[in-house]
Amino acid sequence: MSNPMQAKELLIRAVECDQSGRILEAQTLYTDGIDQLMNFVNGEPDEAKRKVFHTRIKEYMDRAEAIKARVNGKLMLGEVVSHVSIEENDTGYDYDQVFGQYMDRKTIEILVEEPYMQQNYQYANLVRFLELAITNCPNLKYFRLITKEAQDPKYTDNQKTNLGQIKADLERRNIAVSIKYEDSLHDRKIYLSNGFIIKIGRGLHFYKAPNPMYSIGLNNYKFRKCLQTDVDIWRNNSSKS
Amino acid sequence: MSNPMQAKELLIRAVECDQSGRILEAQTLYTDGIDQLMNFVNGEPDEAKRKVFHTRIKEYMDRAEAIKARVNGKLMLGEVVSHVSIEENDTGYDYDQVFGQYMDRKTIEILVEEPYMQQNYQYANLVRFLELAITNCPNLKYFRLITKEAQDPKYTDNQKTNLGQIKADLERRNIAVSIKYEDSLHDRKIYLSNGFIIKIGRGLHFYKAPNPMYSIGLNNYKFRKCLQTDVDIWRNNSSKS
Repeated sequence: MSNPMQAKELLIRAVECDQSGRILEAQTLYTDGIDQLMNFVNGEPDEAKRKVFHTRIKEYMDRAEAIKARVNGKLMLGEVVSHVSIEENDTGYDYDQVFGQYMDRKTIEILVEEPYMQQNYQYANLVRFLELAITNCPNLKYFRLITKEAQDPKYTDNQKTNLGQIKADLERRNIAVSIKYEDSLHDRKIYLSNGFIIKIGRGLHFYKAPNPMYSIGLNNYKFRKCLQTDVDIWRNNSSKS
Repeated sequence: MSNPMQAKELLIRAVECDQSGRILEAQTLYTDGIDQLMNFVNGEPDEAKRKVFHTRIKEYMDRAEAIKARVNGKLMLGEVVSHVSIEENDTGYDYDQVFGQYMDRKTIEILVEEPYMQQNYQYANLVRFLELAITNCPNLKYFRLITKEAQDPKYTDNQKTNLGQIKADLERRNIAVSIKYEDSLHDRKIYLSNGFIIKIGRGLHFYKAPNPMYSIGLNNYKFRKCLQTDVDIWRNNSSKS
């Protein structure tokens, strides 16, 4: 799979994204490009050539480190601009009502940290979130999901299939997607590249199931009963950088 | 079950609904009240009493006939106010976009003639329609669904259960519901008591299934691909009567 042309292409795109402020996508591309280059270099028999490559790799790694620092800076919480406590059994809170106003034309990249993405209603919530993102953020170019890998064998295959299909669907809409598994993840967070960070205690999954199934609230989540959770909207201090 | 007090109560409510312009609900109440009264009278041994009751029943039947004529008049199509042809695979057509603007504060009663209401996606479409009705028509008091009775045993029980649960759910929101089965039904029609009649060739079911399941359009039907169908919005001639 790995060849220097492919690596080069990834790294050129990484630099382009970096320069145009798409730092999440740049981070992914640097990482992938460096990985590919390393794989190739390890198979290169000529030591002189390997040395040249290693110098290049070092340069890219420095850039990747710099961008990692920028990403981490962006993810640092700044000031709280809104706080809402949703009480058990409250209604009136669809995603649009809760945080739709913070998703706008300036949102070019989105990062969702959501530990639980393994069951049908959880995939449905993710799609619901992405439908809102596509509606409100016409310039969205990159989406990263970080979630836990399903351990229960009954969910593992579905997780790969469903997240893979969601990724392919977004890519057909020219939104690059990266899905990362992190088993230690706990906190839920939605980072928007316009500088807002949405922290919901329960993440995207703060709704009760409809009961009975076919009742008002099945589709329109403004009618859904909620679980208790807090919604904090932060604005990143470095959002102008 | 039947007793004269219950019949009397139904018929008093029928007259009230009739007088306040809720003619669909009045029609249901007259029919139910007359049925109850008939059942009771048939069990009355005293012929003189039976005769008195029959006179009353005759009066109510005349009123019921008069209201039936009014309902039929309302259901007569007047002039077309809008025509839209939805092409196969078109997107952008959720219920709100297609006919939401005709559902308003003046809509007190709704009648839906929809032959096929037997499968999961069809119940989901009905709930989606009702969510829009509740959102746009704050004064909605009565909903009647006319549909075909499921013949396939694998759907029969579900139809009773699901439509029963939808009815109970609306009644908790103070919307009276009547569900009628008519096996000869073919045409789809949505009658709104503000005078608009929505005729869609495929009724509520003009969407393709999401493919794959978890993809944009699962929840937000503006992103769903449509089947070819025509949407005609009529305005009833007698809507001021």
